Amino acid sequence: MLKKEQNDLLTQTGPGTPMGELFRRYWLPALLSRELPEPDCPPVRLKLLSEPMVAFRDTQGRLGVIDEFCAHRGVSLWFGRNEEGGLRCPYHGWKYDVNGQCVDVPSEPAESGYCQRIKLKSYSLAERGGVVWIYMGPPELKPPLPEWEFATVPTSQSYISKRLQECNWLQAMEGGIDSSHVSFLHSGALNSDPLFKGAKGNQYNLNDYKPQFEVVPAEGGLLIGARRNAEDGQHYWRITPWVMPSFTMVPPRGDHPLHGHFWVPIDDHNNWAWSFDYHPTRELTATEVQAMDEGKGIHVRYVPGTFRPLKNKDNDYLVDRAAQKARTTYSGVEGIAMQDASLQESMGPIQDRTREHLVSTDNGIIMARQRLMKAARALVEKGEQPPGVGPQAQRIRSVAIVLPAGQPFNEAAADALRAEPGKKHASV
Amino acid sequence: MLKKEQNDLLTQTGPGTPMGELFRRYWLPALLSRELPEPDCPPVRLKLLSEPMVAFRDTQGRLGVIDEFCAHRGVSLWFGRNEEGGLRCPYHGWKYDVNGQCVDVPSEPAESGYCQRIKLKSYSLAERGGVVWIYMGPPELKPPLPEWEFATVPTSQSYISKRLQECNWLQAMEGGIDSSHVSFLHSGALNSDPLFKGAKGNQYNLNDYKPQFEVVPAEGGLLIGARRNAEDGQHYWRITPWVMPSFTMVPPRGDHPLHGHFWVPIDDHNNWAWSFDYHPTRELTATEVQAMDEGKGIHVRYVPGTFRPLKNKDNDYLVDRAAQKARTTYSGVEGIAMQDASLQESMGPIQDRTREHLVSTDNGIIMARQRLMKAARALVEKGEQPPGVGPQAQRIRSVAIVLPAGQPFNEAAADALRAEPGKKHASV
Amino acid sequence: MLKKEQNDLLTQTGPGTPMGELFRRYWLPALLSRELPEPDCPPVRLKLLSEPMVAFRDTQGRLGVIDEFCAHRGVSLWFGRNEEGGLRCPYHGWKYDVNGQCVDVPSEPAESGYCQRIKLKSYSLAERGGVVWIYMGPPELKPPLPEWEFATVPTSQSYISKRLQECNWLQAMEGGIDSSHVSFLHSGALNSDPLFKGAKGNQYNLNDYKPQFEVVPAEGGLLIGARRNAEDGQHYWRITPWVMPSFTMVPPRGDHPLHGHFWVPIDDHNNWAWSFDYHPTRELTATEVQAMDEGKGIHVRYVPGTFRPLKNKDNDYLVDRAAQKARTTYSGVEGIAMQDASLQESMGPIQDRTREHLVSTDNGIIMARQRLMKAARALVEKGEQPPGVGPQAQRIRSVAIVLPAGQPFNEAAADALRAEPGKKHASV
Repeated sequence: MLKKEQNDLLTQTGPGTPMGELFRRYWLPALLSRELPEPDCPPVRLKLLSEPMVAFRDTQGRLGVIDEFCAHRGVSLWFGRNEEGGLRCPYHGWKYDVNGQCVDVPSEPAESGYCQRIKLKSYSLAERGGVVWIYMGPPELKPPLPEWEFATVPTSQSYISKRLQECNWLQAMEGGIDSSHVSFLHSGALNSDPLFKGAKGNQYNLNDYKPQFEVVPAEGGLLIGARRNAEDGQHYWRITPWVMPSFTMVPPRGDHPLHGHFWVPIDDHNNWAWSFDYHPTRELTATEVQAMDEGKGIHVRYVPGTFRPLKNKDNDYLVDRAAQKARTTYSGVEGIAMQDASLQESMGPIQDRTREHLVSTDNGIIMARQRLMKAARALVEKGEQPPGVGPQAQRIRSVAIVLPAGQPFNEAAADALRAEPGKKHASV
Repeated sequence: MLKKEQNDLLTQTGPGTPMGELFRRYWLPALLSRELPEPDCPPVRLKLLSEPMVAFRDTQGRLGVIDEFCAHRGVSLWFGRNEEGGLRCPYHGWKYDVNGQCVDVPSEPAESGYCQRIKLKSYSLAERGGVVWIYMGPPELKPPLPEWEFATVPTSQSYISKRLQECNWLQAMEGGIDSSHVSFLHSGALNSDPLFKGAKGNQYNLNDYKPQFEVVPAEGGLLIGARRNAEDGQHYWRITPWVMPSFTMVPPRGDHPLHGHFWVPIDDHNNWAWSFDYHPTRELTATEVQAMDEGKGIHVRYVPGTFRPLKNKDNDYLVDRAAQKARTTYSGVEGIAMQDASLQESMGPIQDRTREHLVSTDNGIIMARQRLMKAARALVEKGEQPPGVGPQAQRIRSVAIVLPAGQPFNEAAADALRAEPGKKHASV
Repeated sequence: MLKKEQNDLLTQTGPGTPMGELFRRYWLPALLSRELPEPDCPPVRLKLLSEPMVAFRDTQGRLGVIDEFCAHRGVSLWFGRNEEGGLRCPYHGWKYDVNGQCVDVPSEPAESGYCQRIKLKSYSLAERGGVVWIYMGPPELKPPLPEWEFATVPTSQSYISKRLQECNWLQAMEGGIDSSHVSFLHSGALNSDPLFKGAKGNQYNLNDYKPQFEVVPAEGGLLIGARRNAEDGQHYWRITPWVMPSFTMVPPRGDHPLHGHFWVPIDDHNNWAWSFDYHPTRELTATEVQAMDEGKGIHVRYVPGTFRPLKNKDNDYLVDRAAQKARTTYSGVEGIAMQDASLQESMGPIQDRTREHLVSTDNGIIMARQRLMKAARALVEKGEQPPGVGPQAQRIRSVAIVLPAGQPFNEAAADALRAEPGKKHASV
C-alpha cells in the first residue's frame, strides 16, 4: 500500500517529474524501424513521457525526432514534407534537420542568418535490432547504445511488436515483474498457446499454485525467483529479471524463444507495451513467426492501421463467459497479452495504490518500487546517475531451471542469467 | 428557482453528500433479477450513488454486491470467476463471498488467517418482484423489505423495465411528479398508445389544459392532485403519489395497468429510470406484454446489448419534425418515455435551477424539493431517520377518479389510494 | 510571440470577455438563410461566442434567435413547436415570440399577465445575401445592416458556404490574413483548382516565394499588400483587406470570382469558417457553382447532415503522402480550405502563441492583433465604439494588380479597393 504522494511519484513521468527525469536517463524503445522504412518516408507522430514529437528519416537515412510543432506558428510537423535532408513545414516552408536545427526560412534572406537561430527540441535516436531507440536526457550523460540481447541477435532470430496499453505504465510493468499470476490468469494458455505449450516446465507451473518467491538485487534491478517443487526434492526455478526503469523478461519454456517486455509511458494514462521474442541460437521458424503475426504468445492482433489491440476496453476484450466457465481461459479473455492488459486497464487509468493489499508474492513489486523511488529521488535531489543505464545491466536473460534444493538461485543460475552470443538459454 | 447551494444539495448523491446519505437509507431498485439469472452466472457491473460495484449470484443462489475492485491489486472483479461460493479475481485468485469477505488468498497459507482480515465493502441485496433491491446505508438501520405493490403482486401481473437516462436524477424525477405536462407533451399518445388509449379519462385530460393542482403531505411524501372539470359539475382527479426519495406513480387510465417509476442515481450525471406496470387484480395480457416489449407505454426499446434507449441524444431521439407539425406527436419524439427523457436530458447533465421560473402547477415539485432538503439536513445534522423508509409509505396507489365538487381529494380518495391485495384500482 | 495574457485576451470570446464584447458590436454571419427555409420550419441550434441559442422563422416569416433554454424548467427549445407566431416549448406549452417575449403560459390565467413578465434573451437578426446575420450587442448601439459586397450583389452572382473549424477563431483568421503561405501550402492548387487556375497572376505567385509585404491601416482594419516582381520592373500586388473583427478577403485571380471569409467563434475551441465567392458584374456560371458544390476553391464537402468537413481530424484529413511527395498537393491534403484547416487545427484547440516566432511576413498578423487588443481594451475600459462597425468599412474589395514600381499600393489601388455596384474587379 502506497501513500498518495508515493503513487504520484511513481506514476507521473512528464517533464520535470522525478520519475520522468529518471526515465530520461535511459535508452527507451521509441518506434519499430519499419515505421520509418526508408529515407524521406512520411514522418510519424511520437508521444513519450508526455512530450509530443514527430520522428522522421531524412534523405541520407539519418533518424531524427523533434518537437511536434513548428517554431513559426505552431503547425504540427506531422504534416511536414520530408525532403532533401529535412522536414519542411507545409505552411510557410520552414525546414528542420534531424537535430531540430532550422535550415531554411524561405521568407528570410539566407544571409540574414535568421534560421540558424531557430532550433527545435530534439533527442538522440539510434537503431538497433529493428527498433528505433530514444534517449531524452542530458546529451552529455548519454549512455552507450543499448545491448539487450533481443536487439543484438540477428533479426532473423527475433520478433518485436508493440501495442497501446490504455493505463499508466507502472501497473503494466508490475504485471511483468509478477510471475505469481501465471498459474491463474494464464493457466489456460500454458497447454494451448503454440508459443508456450509442450514445455516440461508448464507442469511444474500448473501443479504448484503457491510458489515461493525470493527477490535479490541485481545490477540495475532485481532478480525475482519463483520456486516450485520438482522431482526428487529438487526445485523448479523461474527467474524474472527486472532492469530499471521498465524492462522485464519472462522465464522461458522449453525450446520456445525467450521473451519479455519494455513498458514506456506515452503519458500518465497510456503506455507502449513492447513485446519481444528471440532465440539466442537459432532463427525463428516460419511457424513461430506466423503464430506471432496472428497474436499468439505475448503478441496481439490490432485494429487495422493502428497499434491498438483488436480486443480492447471498448469491446470488453471480447470476454467469453462460457470459455471462462469451462476454464478454456481463466478470465474469459483470450491471449496472454490481453489477459494481462484487460486486468491492468480495469484498475483504471492509474491504479489507486492507497487501497491495495500486497502479500509476500508481491515482494518483487515492492522492491522494484522502492528502488525506483530511491533512484528518482537520488537523481533529482543529488544528481546521482541512476543504476543500470549501461550495457552491463542489459546483458541479462530470464531463466527456467531445475536446481538442487538449498542453493541460492541467483548464484546457481549465475551463468544462465548472463546473456552471451551463441550460448543456449537455460529453459525447462 | 433555487440557489446554487440548494441545487447542489439536491442533485449530488455521492458518498458523504447529504442527499447521498438520504438515498442510502432506503431500499432502492438495483438490478432486474434476470440480469443475474442463475447461480454462478457472470457478475454484473453496478454503479449507484457514484459507487462502482459488482453484483453476483453465488453457487447457492445468494446475491451479493461488493466493491468493484479487488483488495489485492485493484483489478475489476467484473472479470471475476463466479465459482464455488464466491467471486474469484482472475489475476491471483483472491476470492470473495457475497458479503465481500475474502475467503481465499491462494498464495498465503490457509492457517495464516490472512484472508479473514480482508473484506470488501458490500451491501444488502434482496429480491422481490423480479427486482434486486439494494440497501446502502448503516446495516443496523436497515428497513424492512420493500412492499411496493408492483413488487408484491404475482409477477404475471407486472412488467418491470429500466433504462439509462443521461442526466441527473432530480430533473428526471421532477417529470414524474409533474402531471401538468401530460396534456402537452404526451397529448398525441393518449389516443394512440395501446397502453393508454380508450380510457374515458383521456378526454378530461385533453379537454382541460389548465388543471388545478392541489398538493398535500402524505406518509413519507406527497399526494399531488390534478383537478379537471368532468360532467355535471363533478371533478376528474388524477392523483400522483410521490414517496421519498424518488418513487412516483402515474395516475391510471381505464382498465390499463397502473404504472410508475423509480429514479436511482448512477452518478450525478446519469440515472436509472425504472418503469413498472402492474395490474392489481389480473394477469397482464399477452397483448399488453408484447406492447411493453415493443417499447409502448412507459417502456422503451434498447440499443442491443445495453439498457440505453435506441432513441438517445446521439441521434436527437430520432425527432420527426413532420410528425411534430402534424401533432401526431407533440414534440416530434415518439414514445412517452423518450418524450420525457429527451426533454429532461436537453436541460443538460444537471439542470441549472437558478434560472428556472416555477408556477403554481409546479407546486408538487417545489414541495418535494423542500421535503427532500429538510430530510437530508435533518439526517446529517441531527441523525433523524428520514420519512417513508418503511412499508407503510409504500402501500400506495395512484388514482384517477371522478369526485363531487367540494371534497378534499385525499380524503375522498383515501381508500382508493391505499394498496391492498386483490382490491380493484380506481381508474377512469 | 505573445504573453499568455495577450493570447487569452485575443482568443476568449465568451460573455463578459473583452474580445467577446468586441465581437458583440458587429453584425456577424449566423446562419445560411436556407437553414430556416420557410415560415414555421423547424428551429435550429445556434451557438456563437459561447452562448447557446435557438433560431427560428415564425409564421409571418420573421426571424428570431433566443436563449436555447425555456425560462420555465430549462428544456431546450430546439425541441420546440414552431407554430402560430412563436416557438412553443413541448413540455408545458410555454410560447415565445421572435423577440424572446413569452406570449403564452397555458397553466396561468391570461388575465394574470404572468407571461408578459417572462422574456428570454434574444438578439437582432437580419437577412441579407442568403445569410442570416446576428447582432449580439447593446440594442441602442446596433450598427446599420451589413453592406459587404458579397451580401448585396444579386444572389445569382454569389455562392456562400460555412464549415465547422475545430479550433479557436484566431488561428483560423490569421490564416486568412497571411497570404505568404499561398506559395507553399496552396501551390499545387493554383494550377489545378478550376476556381483558381488559368490566371496570369498565378505565375507571379509561383515564381516568387519571397514576396515583400507592406501593411497599412485602413478603415476598421488593414490592407496587407504582397509585392512580387512582374515584367519590366513592375510589381504584382496582391492586396488582402482585413476588417475587424474577422473579415478577410483573398486577392482574386483572373476572371474568377472574388472570395473571402468570415471567422465567427462558436466557443473558444471551435469556429464557423464562412466562405463566400461572388462576381461583381456577372452571374456565376453553372460550372462554377458545380465546382463549389463539389468542394473546389475555398469550399468543402461535408459529413452528410452536418457542416463538418468530410476530411477532418478524425481521419487525418485523408492526407495522401504519395501526392505530397509528388507535389500534386504540397501537404498531402486536397482542397484549399482543408489545407488551411488541417494545419490550423493541428496547432491544438488554441495555438500557444507564447512559443511562436514571427517574421516580417507576419506583419499583417502582428498588426491585426494589436488593433484587436487595442480596440477591445478601449471598449471595455473607456466604452469606445470599435472601428469598422459601419458600412463604410465594408465597401471593400481584394485586389490583384500590376503596378509600376515606386507607388504606394494602397494609393495606386484605391479605386480598385472600393466596392461599387457594377464595377469590374481588378484582377490579374
